[in-house]
Amino acid sequence: MKRIYLLAAIAVTAISQTSRTPSAPHFTADGKLEFPADYREWIYLSSGLGMNYSRGATEGPPSFDNVFVHPSAYHEFMKTGHWPDLTIFVLEVRHSASAGSINKAGNFQTGISSVQAAVKDIKRFPDGEWGYFGFADSHVSAVRVPHSGSCYTCHPANGAVENTFVQFYPTLLEVARAKGTLKPSVAATLDK
Amino acid sequence: MKRIYLLAAIAVTAISQTSRTPSAPHFTADGKLEFPADYREWIYLSSGLGMNYSRGATEGPPSFDNVFVHPSAYHEFMKTGHWPDLTIFVLEVRHSASAGSINKAGNFQTGISSVQAAVKDIKRFPDGEWGYFGFADSHVSAVRVPHSGSCYTCHPANGAVENTFVQFYPTLLEVARAKGTLKPSVAATLDK
Repeated sequence: MKRIYLLAAIAVTAISQTSRTPSAPHFTADGKLEFPADYREWIYLSSGLGMNYSRGATEGPPSFDNVFVHPSAYHEFMKTGHWPDLTIFVLEVRHSASAGSINKAGNFQTGISSVQAAVKDIKRFPDGEWGYFGFADSHVSAVRVPHSGSCYTCHPANGAVENTFVQFYPTLLEVARAKGTLKPSVAATLDK
Repeated sequence: MKRIYLLAAIAVTAISQTSRTPSAPHFTADGKLEFPADYREWIYLSSGLGMNYSRGATEGPPSFDNVFVHPSAYHEFMKTGHWPDLTIFVLEVRHSASAGSINKAGNFQTGISSVQAAVKDIKRFPDGEWGYFGFADSHVSAVRVPHSGSCYTCHPANGAVENTFVQFYPTLLEVARAKGTLKPSVAATLDK
């Protein structure tokens, strides 16, 4: 009888692991981040339209930013307000249109402009724990943005929880407030 | 040995069913749609900002519309371009802000304005197959919008696939084109 339960337990464990981590970050042997092809089935966090952290004007129709996070990292955040090691975010930038089909005003999403990723991997990125990646249109793999890139200064300085802009993800902001994991310097700038 | 495999198979089946249909539409005994509390973990389709199907002006900051569909319905659509019976969509309407934290321009999402749902249930809604629901702020359950509501004329007339606005969900639009399931009257209005 013990063997029966053991086998059943093994089956359960195997399935549970398969369904929970189908697409945590995967790297090639030479350190490139493989394109996470199923990111549209991850957990959606929020979208912005034409967001801009500087006052400079932008040209042309504004872009939508859609942010997704891998489900296993999301569930850990919902419990603790912290990001576990091997968290992976995807930022999908899409073009927008205003007139189309029966729509007369405002903006809806159209084709992809770019796909970017952020990965927390403490061993791989000892210089700040997070690595940033921009995929070429071929969506195969990406080398890490060099550490001189502005992401490596802006995210830790301005992200509400670690390097992440939780202040712009309303469902996570509630959790971080409840768990007390907001960065004090950022929390002070947010309206209650 | 057969018993061992049988038990393992039962365990596998139980888990698989639990993970695939945790929240298909559930109705109370008196026909109200129960609030799908986990919809933020469903599949995200797209967002709009300030979308308007008429030319009338709107007041105040524009709202974001986030659209989610239950995973089992999404996977069926990706295979066939059709919505299975018991498909459930959620439309989450959120307020927007422009200035906040380090953001200077454009719009990001803030609190919930309303949550609405659409359910395909051929037996329950023989008069058009789809039912529409608007949840009160308590997010408990909702009675069906009466059949005189404009949703029951606008959706079937203008939705690109059945009653759904696939023309505004770019990842699904590609699938519907490939599967040939776009409504011809709507397809003719879309730019190729």
